[in-house]
Parts: sequence; C-alpha cells; structure tokens
Amino acid sequence: LACSVEIICVGNELLIGKTLNTNAQWLADQITRLGGKVARIMEVGDDVQEIASVVKEALKRKVDFVITSGGLGPTFDDKTLQGVSRATGKKLKLNPEALRLVRDRYKEMSVPKRLRLTKPRVKMAILPEGSSPIPNPIGTAPGVLVERGSSKLISLPGVPKELKAIFEKGVAEMMREKSGDLSFYESNMIVRGIVESALAPLLDRVMRDNPRVYVKSHPKGGEGRTGALIELHFSSTEKNRGKAREQVIKAIIDMVRILGKTR
Amino acid sequence: LACSVEIICVGNELLIGKTLNTNAQWLADQITRLGGKVARIMEVGDDVQEIASVVKEALKRKVDFVITSGGLGPTFDDKTLQGVSRATGKKLKLNPEALRLVRDRYKEMSVPKRLRLTKPRVKMAILPEGSSPIPNPIGTAPGVLVERGSSKLISLPGVPKELKAIFEKGVAEMMREKSGDLSFYESNMIVRGIVESALAPLLDRVMRDNPRVYVKSHPKGGEGRTGALIELHFSSTEKNRGKAREQVIKAIIDMVRILGKTR
Repeated sequence: LACSVEIICVGNELLIGKTLNTNAQWLADQITRLGGKVARIMEVGDDVQEIASVVKEALKRKVDFVITSGGLGPTFDDKTLQGVSRATGKKLKLNPEALRLVRDRYKEMSVPKRLRLTKPRVKMAILPEGSSPIPNPIGTAPGVLVERGSSKLISLPGVPKELKAIFEKGVAEMMREKSGDLSFYESNMIVRGIVESALAPLLDRVMRDNPRVYVKSHPKGGEGRTGALIELHFSSTEKNRGKAREQVIKAIIDMVRILGKTR
Repeated sequence: LACSVEIICVGNELLIGKTLNTNAQWLADQITRLGGKVARIMEVGDDVQEIASVVKEALKRKVDFVITSGGLGPTFDDKTLQGVSRATGKKLKLNPEALRLVRDRYKEMSVPKRLRLTKPRVKMAILPEGSSPIPNPIGTAPGVLVERGSSKLISLPGVPKELKAIFEKGVAEMMREKSGDLSFYESNMIVRGIVESALAPLLDRVMRDNPRVYVKSHPKGGEGRTGALIELHFSSTEKNRGKAREQVIKAIIDMVRILGKTR
C-alpha cells in the first residue's frame, strides 16, 4: 500500500564522524510526510564497490524508490554514478540533456564560453545509459533518475541546499503520486515522574487498544534518575488525514486515562 | 591492518526523520580517533526481522566489531536483542550477571525490594546465550557483548548519554587494543574564490603526490555562486601520530603552492 523507500548516503565524511547526517533526517521526514515509508538508511564511503553493493541490495528488496545522496560533483571522489552504473549494468555515457543543464548553469554564472565545459564539469553530465537528469535549481550537478523494474533509483547531490531544492521540485511529486492519499499524523506527549520500565505495561495496553497507532517511548532523563521524563511519540498513517489524526488523539486520551488511574 | 567496524542504529524515530542520528556520528568519530575504520552505517526500524538481517549481513562481512545502538530498554519496542538472537542463533536467556546489574541499579534508585524486578526490568537482563553484559554506569540497561568467530558484536542503548558512558568505559579499550598504535590525524583548509570544478584537477595532483593522505572537498557556497567557498579536509591514518600529522601538513603545503601558481 504505502510507497517504500530506502535512502543511501555516500561520503567518507559520514564514516569518520566529521559530518552529521542531516540529509538522511531531512529526506526521511519529507518522505514520511508524503505518505512514504522509509525502510532502511545506509551510509557508505566514497568507494565504487561499496556504493554498487548497497544500491544492488536495495534494488533487490524491490522498494519503490531508492534515493542516494552525495557523490555527484566534479571531483575524483564523487563516485556515486560509477556505483549506480556497476549496480545496474547501465554504462556511463555523456547525456546530452544533462550536458545542456550543466552548460546553461555555467553560462548563467558568466563563465566564458571556452571555459564552460572543462573535463570535471562534463563529468557531471556523464550518466548511466537510459537515465534522465533532474534539474538542479540552485547548483550545477543535476539529480539523476534511473528506472529499474518497478523501482525508481534517484541520485541527489550531497550539498543540503541542492538536495532539498531538487527533491522539492523534481522528486516529491513522484512520491506523492505513488503513495496515493496516504497521510501521516504524529503527536508527542511528555510524561513525568514515572520510569520507562513502569510505563511499559501501560504502553502495551494502549498499543493493543489502538492497533493503527504506533507509540514509541523516548526516555529523556534516563531510567536511573528521579524526576524521569519520557517523551511518548504517537503516529499513524492513513488514507485520510482526519482519520490518522483522530486515531492518534484517541490513543493519547487512552494513555492519559490509564496514567491517571495508576497514581 | 586497521580495526574494521560497522554501526547499526535501531529505531523507527530515525526512519521517520524525527530524530537526527547523533549516535552514529559520535560513535564514528570516536572509533576513527581510536584508529578504527567504520565501513558502513545502517539504520533500521524496531523490527526483529530487519534487525536480524542487517546484523547477519554485517557479520558476514567479517568486520572486527559490529556496534548496534538502540532497542535495549524495557518496552515492547526494544527489540535489538531479539534481532541479535535470531541473527546469531543464540537463544535469549536470563543472564545472572546482567540481572545483578539491573537489580543493583534499582536498589541505588531506592526502589522498594519487592518492586525492583518487575517483568519489564527483568527483560533488560535477558540476553543471547553466551553473551556478557557491559555495565551501564548511568542507566539501567547494560550493554551486551556477543562474540561470533573473530567478530565482536556489541549492543548499546540508544539514549546518547548511556551509549557514550558504556562505550567510553567498556568498549573503547577493546578497540584501541585491536587497532594497535594506529592514529588518525585530520586538518581542514578553506579555499575561496574558486569553484569545485576548477579545483578538481589541482586536488587530483595533490592526491597523487600524497598517496597516504585522503583529501576531500566540501563545497560550502555551492558551485553556482560567486564567492564560492570550499572546505578541504585532509586526513591520514598511520601507526605513528607524528607521521600522520607530518603527511597531512605536507599535503596542505602542496595544495597552497599549487593554488598560488594558478592565480
């Protein structure tokens, strides 16, 4: 029913802990709001074989969308499309439409004509055969769409602003279409003065009585402290946003009642 | 040579974009500084089958350490050890040492004796057979070590403070031992007024002349803007910290010289 998605983030900077992966969180949040379901997030380094492996594994699971972020730029360490090419068996080839996008971008930047298409710049237009570039409204490297069976494999650049711009303008609509009218609704509730291990059986009861609502507890003060503080996160995905909302609210009311009875 | 590590983060909150995965970044940074090499980071939901799959896949790649974070607590959605059990074939069983750790913790919290070991609390002491608990200096759920061939599979709780405390006190030393004297050295350099596509061939040259140094460019202003700003990250892992540092500095000097010649 829901539209299934896996996210692959490419970059050594993630694996050495230099960069916090805000791209994965932003994408996951957007996809969830569009009614999609993120099944896995993977992070790998700038290594063609590693990229190819995770892309292949994700495609094997036949999700509707595989989104990669990072590794599309002009430098030697931008290897995502080499990995995609190896995973899909589609050879890298100069894509005329992508070349036009790259050229126009440097023209807008007033780069003199003879310098516009240097080798590193042309690299950004060399895509797996049969793929389509997705325009980059604010940067130079276009996004890339490769269709593979019923899966759409979409590669986005790692610069957060560019990733967001391409996703919003060129990807979100595809996902919205796939997920139909599905809507996600969420709400939080803070519970004080009860430790998570004491809350557990109450949560079980609320979950059982509200099977379409997912409740998750996030201890904020730690189980080992007095004045424990727990955040409860209620969420529901339904065809109808009103119904998702209604179910979440009912579960919260149930929780409040049960908590009231125990103290 | 280096000590290889994979990180697995468990939690629906990661897949819906509610929580930024700071645990993965913190672990990756620590592991890198201890001379280890993080090969992959994976994020999956609170689903026994999914957890079991990624743990199994990581163990198949025969890395020295697989570190999981999240899903060790007392509530129904804490499923990491069920996943580990399924992946390793080691049955879940009450672990007397873990039970003692949990009991002592609630005793310290002045919980009356007859209430100390409720079912959700005992759950935190039910570990895969043959595993060892790793004491949690500030929370209730102990970490868990399972040995599997030459791999150590270590499960840590997802509450950041507890994850950090257990890692620092009970895991870092194991990793330091495995990685020997390997040391990581890194340094950054900011380059202004040159776009990444023009910098690319210069970077290639510096990398070729400094094969033990990894250089990565991070465009900060975007390729499509005047006044482009690029961060260059230089890093090296060597047996001797002095040597790693020396190599990084030499590569930076080379970069500065080459940049000077081009303007």
